Parts: sequence; structure tokens; C-alpha cells
Amino acid sequence: MKIIADNLRITQKSIADAVMQKNPAPLQDMVKRCENAGAEGIDINSGPLYRNPESQMTFMVEAVQDVTRLPVIIDTSNPKALKAGLAASKNPVTLNGISLEPFKLEQILPLARAYACDLICYLLYPNGHVPPDSAGRLEVAVSLYQKCREAGIEPDRIIMDPVVAPLSWQDGLFQAREVLTVIRTLPDLLGVSVRTIAGLSNLAAGAQASARKHLAEQVYLPMLAASGLSMALMNVLHTEPVRVARMCRLLSQESIFTWEMVP
Amino acid sequence: MKIIADNLRITQKSIADAVMQKNPAPLQDMVKRCENAGAEGIDINSGPLYRNPESQMTFMVEAVQDVTRLPVIIDTSNPKALKAGLAASKNPVTLNGISLEPFKLEQILPLARAYACDLICYLLYPNGHVPPDSAGRLEVAVSLYQKCREAGIEPDRIIMDPVVAPLSWQDGLFQAREVLTVIRTLPDLLGVSVRTIAGLSNLAAGAQASARKHLAEQVYLPMLAASGLSMALMNVLHTEPVRVARMCRLLSQESIFTWEMVP
Repeated sequence: MKIIADNLRITQKSIADAVMQKNPAPLQDMVKRCENAGAEGIDINSGPLYRNPESQMTFMVEAVQDVTRLPVIIDTSNPKALKAGLAASKNPVTLNGISLEPFKLEQILPLARAYACDLICYLLYPNGHVPPDSAGRLEVAVSLYQKCREAGIEPDRIIMDPVVAPLSWQDGLFQAREVLTVIRTLPDLLGVSVRTIAGLSNLAAGAQASARKHLAEQVYLPMLAASGLSMALMNVLHTEPVRVARMCRLLSQESIFTWEMVP
Repeated sequence: MKIIADNLRITQKSIADAVMQKNPAPLQDMVKRCENAGAEGIDINSGPLYRNPESQMTFMVEAVQDVTRLPVIIDTSNPKALKAGLAASKNPVTLNGISLEPFKLEQILPLARAYACDLICYLLYPNGHVPPDSAGRLEVAVSLYQKCREAGIEPDRIIMDPVVAPLSWQDGLFQAREVLTVIRTLPDLLGVSVRTIAGLSNLAAGAQASARKHLAEQVYLPMLAASGLSMALMNVLHTEPVRVARMCRLLSQESIFTWEMVP
């Protein structure tokens, strides 16, 4: 399970200001802190970038890649920004992402094909809603997988996001369990060892921080890992979840055999 | 996932002395502390009890059950002690346990049948060795399940213990992953939703306590829960693992739907 930083977000005022002023330092500082903390990939969450999407995304991608060789995830629903980010990227890049929403299928799927990059597929209904259970998500996964294959996307480029829902939802615990079922079931269902990603921060979204919420994240992460999750998108500047994530990798990564040989 | 206390062990000098002197207070104090800490069952680990097995086990079971209505697990390889414990028990009782070792099949299996109690089956080879991988354990599980059924033990009385191996073993991490595979695979393999138990303390056995070992336990426990473990045998007087175990139950117990409704 790889650890992907979700810390670089334009919703943070310091990052928004830096992008507006084309000042790379705050972005680069954040990226270096994330890499030092153990990030193995950087999600560049630019938001929709309504104004000057191309130049702003180009700036963000270049700023990030001037200080890291880590893979990046370009996280926006704006196809113009995605395209500019793809063109500017030297590092391995993942598009984040598509769903069954028609606009995204039409605009973003061809980009993933043209650039032969990795692509995150959200298991959401065409109207953007979260399916009520694992069966709904798996049905969406089959449709999305077919759309990708028809568009010429190779299976090993596809990364499924089962959509972690907030525990504060009325059926939050049920949703959390259904996500585990989806991750465990997808490879058998699709007949390929498709990769998966999950946004851990969503679990406690919309709720006040508390010891109980932190504990939920720390317990849910190993459950995701044991279910076969490939990539955890998370705040890597929180020390404890990163320690847990590293231990998850140790306990779940098939290439590591021996406890005494690892740092 | 139920939390079973492994704290009541005759290897603790205070418990050994109390049993020798037939003084129930230290046992009862321990049991009350375990119950307060969240234990849902008490493992009575008496060791082999070479001298006076009947009277010593009767004393232990009665001492425990005078202060708790929790189910107990009678944990000894001595059939005389097991029988005395069964006869003395008012609370629900589990025998711990059998394996393919011929002596145990001959002596303990009939007891489980006669008292219609739950029975723990260790996935060990007939010589008592730990199988090298999940395939070996699953093969043993099939044999043990057949032995149990032939002896008239009902499937819902059978609890499989896949045998958590110490991480300090040369292939410790591999073993840890194989145990998860076994827990996940058993219901499909046997065609019944057979229960499972795992001894969490074994994971760091034989190694010096360290932050890393504690972290391994705290990460492995949710992995066990996500794999479908029914019962975690653990030190319930360590606060942090118990907090983790309770959160595991919350996140994995199918009858609990809503985060806000739980304490």
C-alpha cells in the first residue's frame, strides 16, 4: 500500500495565494515536508481552476516537480487544467479522475488514453451520488471498467476509488464496511488485479476532530490495507496515521518477508 | 469481534501462588479488572496442572465464576483438568483446545461432545509444529473439521485458531499475512461460517517490548478484524489495544449501522 499525500490543496489559503501570485515556495515547502514525512506520491488538488486553468495548473505541476521526483496525481474536474498538467509533467502522473458522469467520460477519458497515464475512477452514480452499498459500487465499477477498456485504457492504468463516506452519515459504519467489501471483491469481479485508492480523510469529514475520530482513522487504515488497498490518500503530516500506514505496508506487502530486516 | 482476556495465566507468580494456596482473591481481582477493561470472555490458562488437576481447575473455575458471568475458556492440555473445569462451570465454556495431535483428539474431543461446549481447534500439524503457510493451515483445518464432525461436534461449536506466529521468526511477516488469508478463506473452504480466534500476544512473543512491537499489534488487530476474526485473545489491561479492538468491533460488526448511536 502506497502513501499519497493529500496535503497540497488549493483550499488552503497559503497555497491559493501562492498559486495566484505564481510563487512556488509555499507549494515546494509543502511538497518537501510531505516527502520527508513518507509520502510516495503527491496529490495536486487544484480545485476547478475556473480562471486561467492552463497556466495555473502548469505553474503548480512545475513548482512541485522542481523539488520532487515523486509521482503526482492531478486532482481537478477541469479538463483544460488536466491537459495542461499532463503536458507539463515530467514525473509519472495519474489523472484524478473520472466517474460515470457523462461530462467526465467525454472530456477526461480521451486525455488518459492520449497520454497513456494512470486514471482514477470514482465509483459514483452518473449523477455524482454515492451508491448505497457495495453492490451499487461494484455495478458502477463494471460499467466504468467497460468504458475505460472501450476507450483503449489498459487495465493496469485503472485505479478504482470506492469512495470512503463520512462516518457521520446516518449509515456511516455500514458504508465503511461496504467500502472494504468493494476493495476485496473488485479483482475477482473484474478478473484483473485492478488497483484501488481510498481517501482516508473522508472518514472523519464533516465531524469535529476528536480522539475517537483519530482512532477510527488509525483502525480503518489497516482494515483497508488488509482488504487489499493499493494507495491510501491521506494527510501525511499527521504523524500517527503515517506510522500506522508504514506498518500496514510492512504487514501487507508480499515482497517483505522478515521483520528483522526492515528499518 | 469479541475481546477475550488472556491475562489470567498461571505463569504469573501471584496467580500460581493463589492457586496453590486456594486463595481466590488474586484471581477474582484479576477477573474483575479484565471485565472492567472490556473483556467479553476470560481465558483460564492453568498450564498442564500435573498435580491435583481436578481440584486445582475446579478451584480456578469456581473462583472466576463467583465474580463474573462472562463465558470462560478453559486453557490446558490436561484432559482431567478440562473435565473438572467443565463439571464446575456454570457460565458458557469453551475448551482450549485440540489439534491433530493424536493424544488430544482421543482425550479432549469426546469431552467437547459430551458437554456440548465450544471447542478451539489449533491449526497445527500432528507433531505440534506450525504449518509453513496458509495452504498448510487450511489443509489441517479440513482434517480437524472432519474429525470434529465425525465425533459429533456441531459446526457452530467449532472455533479455529490459525496460530499467530511471532514476528521475530525468520518468516514472521509472511506468517502474519498467511494467518489473515486463513481467516478469510476458512468459511468458503469449509462451507460454514466457522468462528476463528487468534492470540494477539503471540505476534510480539519472544521479542523485547518496543514502540514498534506495540504498533505492530495495533495495526495487526484491525487486519484480523477486517479478515473476519471472531475472537481476539489479548492482554486487556493494555489500554491502547483495547481501544483499537473496540473500534474494530464498531467498524466490523454488521449489526451496528450508525456512528452517532454508539457510545
